[in-house]
Amino acid sequence: METLSSAKAHGGIQGVYRHYSRSTDTPMTFAVFVPPQAATAKVPVVWFLSGLTCTHQNAMDKAEYRRAAAELGLMIVLPDTSPRGPHVPDETDNWQFGSGAGFYLDATEAPYDANYRMYSYITDELPSYLAVNFPADLSRQAIMGHSMGGHGALTIALKHPERFRSASAFAPIVQPSTADWSRPALAKYLGHNTMAYRDYDTTLLIEDGKRFSEFLVDQGDKDEYLETGLRPWLLKEACDKAGIPLTLNMREGYDHSYAFVSTFMADHLAWHAERLKR
Amino acid sequence: METLSSAKAHGGIQGVYRHYSRSTDTPMTFAVFVPPQAATAKVPVVWFLSGLTCTHQNAMDKAEYRRAAAELGLMIVLPDTSPRGPHVPDETDNWQFGSGAGFYLDATEAPYDANYRMYSYITDELPSYLAVNFPADLSRQAIMGHSMGGHGALTIALKHPERFRSASAFAPIVQPSTADWSRPALAKYLGHNTMAYRDYDTTLLIEDGKRFSEFLVDQGDKDEYLETGLRPWLLKEACDKAGIPLTLNMREGYDHSYAFVSTFMADHLAWHAERLKR
Repeated sequence: METLSSAKAHGGIQGVYRHYSRSTDTPMTFAVFVPPQAATAKVPVVWFLSGLTCTHQNAMDKAEYRRAAAELGLMIVLPDTSPRGPHVPDETDNWQFGSGAGFYLDATEAPYDANYRMYSYITDELPSYLAVNFPADLSRQAIMGHSMGGHGALTIALKHPERFRSASAFAPIVQPSTADWSRPALAKYLGHNTMAYRDYDTTLLIEDGKRFSEFLVDQGDKDEYLETGLRPWLLKEACDKAGIPLTLNMREGYDHSYAFVSTFMADHLAWHAERLKR
Repeated sequence: METLSSAKAHGGIQGVYRHYSRSTDTPMTFAVFVPPQAATAKVPVVWFLSGLTCTHQNAMDKAEYRRAAAELGLMIVLPDTSPRGPHVPDETDNWQFGSGAGFYLDATEAPYDANYRMYSYITDELPSYLAVNFPADLSRQAIMGHSMGGHGALTIALKHPERFRSASAFAPIVQPSTADWSRPALAKYLGHNTMAYRDYDTTLLIEDGKRFSEFLVDQGDKDEYLETGLRPWLLKEACDKAGIPLTLNMREGYDHSYAFVSTFMADHLAWHAERLKR
């Protein structure tokens, strides 16, 4: 593991690291905030999955999680959103596919299946790596994300309810298999067997019987993608039908940006901390 | 005035604006955070001057001031650090001069004197502009900054003690007329009459009789520029000699980055708010 940067912040350490990933067959960069409490004991882990076009850096710079994480004693892990590199197939003029748009799935279609395996990377490889290299208490994990990363957080929680004590999202894509801005990507990664999409779609996973203890979702009502990409009412319908408690906070005047995410970040971290410490 | 972006954050509005500046003879971009309290009354103003290589955006993204500013009812103004544009003389391979390195002075040497007039822009033009276009109570102003911007904040406060109720800095360049990384810039902007440098040097302004009520300075002890560029002990000597109260917090383990600035931002804003509300 290579340390790309490390700086003291709010009493903890904000670091950026790079390692070789066998899941994606590329170097992968990720950021970890280690809170001051890790000096004396392993600490609970909160995964933050980022949205389209992002790397680890967008949330690291703009999501304003460090003060709350340091107070609450939470490690924050920020993975990249896709594999990257000269040998990784990409469409450089398409922000909704390829680099920055891994959609937290394992591609099955060539040539994408060789590298676009973010689901395995996030759920299998990176946790093992954290366990060895960081003071992470993996018996206490939470997961959250923004937009495409909200989709990632909710789908991964539904598939690993035993692993995550809590799951939340900011402006998640709740039904990527039908949303304008994600369906074309799923078709390229997963092919035209639309049954395969169900495994990476929050509302359809719930329809197919997956369950989670409860969800917290914040959504700005001035979000420019509300109607075309996000559609939180589809999540509400699915949760209501399945009996999954959903706290859906519609936030007046907020858009899709980190200005919105950062505003409610401390609330989400406090909510996770409460559940991680039970 | 052109609005480049505007987003609700922490109950207020984070905006980015562009206007034509007669001081610099260029378009100038700046950011303003308007706290929710401005809905009912004009609010006090805190200027944040940024460091070398920065635009308004670095602190806007990374300084984590919005939560505290919204709680305390403070407007935060983030100007750019220099004029910019195709007709502005620059040395593109030199990060310590030209674009991103205006040093908050009015240049007197050709060809720089036509545009590099950040002192006039910050102390005269932008305040007038704020008074007309924003709910700013200019009878209650504070000023702060980071690195080169800490230099800007302290020198401007010393020259306008009647205007600013408080002044603070993160890792300021306290004696730019002798620091390796600033003296060459001053020579280009101000020529070889070193007497002219005194007007833009915190320690020498104090030596020459300028006074301010008190200063708050935070400085990381792992700052990579501590010995060569910053040298807070020179400020301490000057303040001690002049009887200016200085709170100099040396912060163990912190570097020069926004990881450091963001950690102590809320403390500085609370300190300013206390003085702005007296």
